[in-house]
Amino acid sequence: MIKSIEWTGVSLKIIDQNELPEQLVYTELRTPDEVFDAIKKLKIRGAPAIGIAAVFGLYLGLKDKKDLEKNDFIAHAHSLVEYLCRARPTAVNLKWSLQNLLDTISASTLPPARLTGAVLDQALFLLKDDQQRCEKIGQHGSPLITDGMTVLTHCNTGALATAGIGTALGILYTAWKMGKKFSVMVDETRPLLQGARLTMWELNQLGIPATLITDNMAAYAMQLNKIDLVLVGADRIAANGDVANKIGTYNLAVISQFHRIPFYVAAPLSSFDLQISDGRQIPIEERSQEEVTHLRQKVAITVPEAVCWNPAFDMTPARLISGIITEQGIIYPPFEQSINRLHFKTYQNQEVVTS
Amino acid sequence: MIKSIEWTGVSLKIIDQNELPEQLVYTELRTPDEVFDAIKKLKIRGAPAIGIAAVFGLYLGLKDKKDLEKNDFIAHAHSLVEYLCRARPTAVNLKWSLQNLLDTISASTLPPARLTGAVLDQALFLLKDDQQRCEKIGQHGSPLITDGMTVLTHCNTGALATAGIGTALGILYTAWKMGKKFSVMVDETRPLLQGARLTMWELNQLGIPATLITDNMAAYAMQLNKIDLVLVGADRIAANGDVANKIGTYNLAVISQFHRIPFYVAAPLSSFDLQISDGRQIPIEERSQEEVTHLRQKVAITVPEAVCWNPAFDMTPARLISGIITEQGIIYPPFEQSINRLHFKTYQNQEVVTS
Repeated sequence: MIKSIEWTGVSLKIIDQNELPEQLVYTELRTPDEVFDAIKKLKIRGAPAIGIAAVFGLYLGLKDKKDLEKNDFIAHAHSLVEYLCRARPTAVNLKWSLQNLLDTISASTLPPARLTGAVLDQALFLLKDDQQRCEKIGQHGSPLITDGMTVLTHCNTGALATAGIGTALGILYTAWKMGKKFSVMVDETRPLLQGARLTMWELNQLGIPATLITDNMAAYAMQLNKIDLVLVGADRIAANGDVANKIGTYNLAVISQFHRIPFYVAAPLSSFDLQISDGRQIPIEERSQEEVTHLRQKVAITVPEAVCWNPAFDMTPARLISGIITEQGIIYPPFEQSINRLHFKTYQNQEVVTS
Repeated sequence: MIKSIEWTGVSLKIIDQNELPEQLVYTELRTPDEVFDAIKKLKIRGAPAIGIAAVFGLYLGLKDKKDLEKNDFIAHAHSLVEYLCRARPTAVNLKWSLQNLLDTISASTLPPARLTGAVLDQALFLLKDDQQRCEKIGQHGSPLITDGMTVLTHCNTGALATAGIGTALGILYTAWKMGKKFSVMVDETRPLLQGARLTMWELNQLGIPATLITDNMAAYAMQLNKIDLVLVGADRIAANGDVANKIGTYNLAVISQFHRIPFYVAAPLSSFDLQISDGRQIPIEERSQEEVTHLRQKVAITVPEAVCWNPAFDMTPARLISGIITEQGIIYPPFEQSINRLHFKTYQNQEVVTS
């Protein structure tokens, strides 16, 4: 299994995902600026992975500040968190992992030197913890996959998007390891082609049969009965079950309902934002027009004067979602109620920091 | 207004649409092979335009065969028609324009020299006739466009796709000339990006405000009430109103219905195929995997081992279509009945050949 994010002891080693699938290039991040830049430019991406990377970014910004007065240290941590959160606004994992940690160290009586160590411990804990949560999502979701099925997926939700086997793609990986025989249809996922570049690369490595399509082919594939299940990830899930995810997800949810095809979302609890009552309040990141006008940052596809709209995510209302696969099992509508039965506490107080 | 297809007296002069939007390159076709190649490789495209180009292709293949025996001449014409029809199987205009003409010259008592002239006359007639039909489609469709509206369109249905102002895009052109103030949202139309390359180029030339999106953004734009009307073309319309059109059209029809947005198709009568009772019988062209795996024939977007599915068209059932705008007016459901009230005879017997 590919490790998209590792701690070397002095740096955060990641796969530069902009270089895939042509080259498998690792890059080491040693400062908060390098972490910010890697997240912003999508060298590292996927809601769970960037949540973890940001905590390492916080550590990298604090490790040389052990001698600061406690107040100055906390103020510095605040500004680092505020900075790192700005890298990408939609995925809540980033905000969640940083804000929780900031609250904890702000309230702590420990000196800066100890808090710095605690931040690193927390980052390492999240890295390992995410692996375990991915495994559990895989176990809970794999019964949905049956022999002979074709599963459509969008964007990338695999080892490249997490510290483990992935969320939606982790379920496919788990089912494949169990010996189930199925195939995957992969949306290319314009504008940045994460499906074509990353998911096709991962599935090829795993030996799982996959067929690439352009995003606008999915509905026709459904009409021809070529798709049995749709499985996607999430960047933020509101308290009512509304899901923000990669642009194109909402389109898939609408066409899945029209064709009566089950539409499942896979995500760890860190992707839920219970402070937000419904999806309309989730900030949707709009990225540069060049991502639409130039393919792979190289080839222009339109007139130089072209105006574009480039929302990086969209919002799928809960009523279009068959179920959400979490590390604590699959939850079903009505999500307001089923989300309330999840145990979020397991995430909120990590011993390493509060001790 | 751009002329995408012109007869020079000795050759068919077309705009090589693969070179747009970077360069406006004209190329002259002098043999049936060059016409076949230009259609196959999409140098010229759009159902009405290729229907006309094919007739010039037939003429170019017959003009030096005037001295053949009548039977040999007809046999040669048959094989040319069979050859040209193979260039693209989905658009019916091509088959229709050639087959009608072939039937007529086969039944004619005129000698080859006269028939050759008649084929050229017919090609020239179709060129002019298509311009007039586009004008009428524009007149009938323009009342659908109102001030302040945003119209979503897909692929290219403008001057580049016809011998006139276009079908769906011709309606927008007509409304704009009438002084209506609206804007257009343009699907990029993967895999070959006709929306980004050609429609954005045409709208830019006309000065009509346009915003480019990736195909997977349309549903989210509809959710945000950014789209008031969807207007597309057609490659073949069955007797029940089912429409084959550029891949992604069916997706748009489904999401339009979900959002209760009117979904209109614009096409001349030559795009109707009354011999086909419903859309499931329309042959859907599947094109090479390289169109999906390589952007603009240049940049790879996935692993070299990738398997793709590349249907160039899809089929939209009549029940998802609000209306079809023809040169004889807008027809509405039930289409089995409204199509029957159209006057197809106007097309079937051209004086130039039957005289």
